[in-house]
Amino acid sequence: MSTVTVVEKIMDANDQVANLIREKLTAKKVFAINLMASPGAGKTTFILRTIQELSSRLKIGVIEGDTAPVTIDADKITAAGMPAVQINTGGECHLDAMMMTRGIEQLPLDDLDLIIVENVGNLICPAAFNLGTHANILIASIPEGDDKPYKYPNIYRGLDVLIISKTDLMPYIQFNMDYFKQGVEMLNPGLTSFALSAQTGAGFADWIKWLETNVNKIKRAG
Amino acid sequence: MSTVTVVEKIMDANDQVANLIREKLTAKKVFAINLMASPGAGKTTFILRTIQELSSRLKIGVIEGDTAPVTIDADKITAAGMPAVQINTGGECHLDAMMMTRGIEQLPLDDLDLIIVENVGNLICPAAFNLGTHANILIASIPEGDDKPYKYPNIYRGLDVLIISKTDLMPYIQFNMDYFKQGVEMLNPGLTSFALSAQTGAGFADWIKWLETNVNKIKRAG
Repeated sequence: MSTVTVVEKIMDANDQVANLIREKLTAKKVFAINLMASPGAGKTTFILRTIQELSSRLKIGVIEGDTAPVTIDADKITAAGMPAVQINTGGECHLDAMMMTRGIEQLPLDDLDLIIVENVGNLICPAAFNLGTHANILIASIPEGDDKPYKYPNIYRGLDVLIISKTDLMPYIQFNMDYFKQGVEMLNPGLTSFALSAQTGAGFADWIKWLETNVNKIKRAG
Repeated sequence: MSTVTVVEKIMDANDQVANLIREKLTAKKVFAINLMASPGAGKTTFILRTIQELSSRLKIGVIEGDTAPVTIDADKITAAGMPAVQINTGGECHLDAMMMTRGIEQLPLDDLDLIIVENVGNLICPAAFNLGTHANILIASIPEGDDKPYKYPNIYRGLDVLIISKTDLMPYIQFNMDYFKQGVEMLNPGLTSFALSAQTGAGFADWIKWLETNVNKIKRAG
């Protein structure tokens, strides 16, 4: 059997497991998002602010993907009063649907409205693995530079939502927003995007509105 | 044959090729560095400034690792007057020694003093693959946050030099340098490090001195 065939079979199996996860979450009326980003794009700070804004209205569980057995991020979520599960990928640069299955088994699904999955910090591997969430979301932070869509096209192609973060740093960084957005539009025309700062809260309201609308859609369906 | 055995055999083969590369470069008196970082840590800007500071005294070739067939980075190097080779990893999240072999075959080794390899933007996969360079260097940029050594320990363990970059952004970002350095020291005691800004040039002189000293050591040897 050639390597390509093995890889194809692995991806097929992953997609099948992902479909089962999505069906289960939808049946339980839990909306789930797969949050991807470079290391240091501010995923955990973004999640903490999202929890803070929604905690009076929604119950939120978090699955933390990490390549090392450290619980820095999961501890921050737990301190914010929400259930968090840490999945150590054992060095792998992405979560996959099997790891996601282990994650949701440890969360109280009947009590949750929303699951936020913090994927491993990486712009390459996570793009290839469907996790069975309802939306793939990328956080692109301003300090990473305006050429990222051109250099990491695969991850942009599969997105449902793009978060442009750390906008508070715009005055101090050379970042051509038009050039960045042209790259995104070429790869994923009409992509929903929110520019915001998790530090100052600027632009956060629109993202929260989108998220809450989608959580409520799942609740009302079926 | 178990998966682990296959992986071990691949890593052994990679190391063998890497050793051949290092012998060849040393014999040709060319010093080579493997530059790793997150996407957006500023690798290309750092390389361009390094070239600018050294171009009157050294001949420098660059190997650009990219996951997509775009030549944004290689074009910038060529525009700076130095030979650049682009290696498209075809989606792989790291360079390996076989790719490196293809890269150095395309460079005029007899005319070069220094080869800078810009690895794929990633903190996970590149750590595992020896490329046959003389030094493994990581650029950690201030906006990525002070917890990165704790979250990506493997890449820190294998370093010869650490570059702490974008220090010009320190006033605008919560970054605890003591916490960061404690993490580094735990993983790689006594690691040589340079804090600098490729934008303003602050701190760049010490890095250039280190690099030039090591280029000259290889030249004088043998």
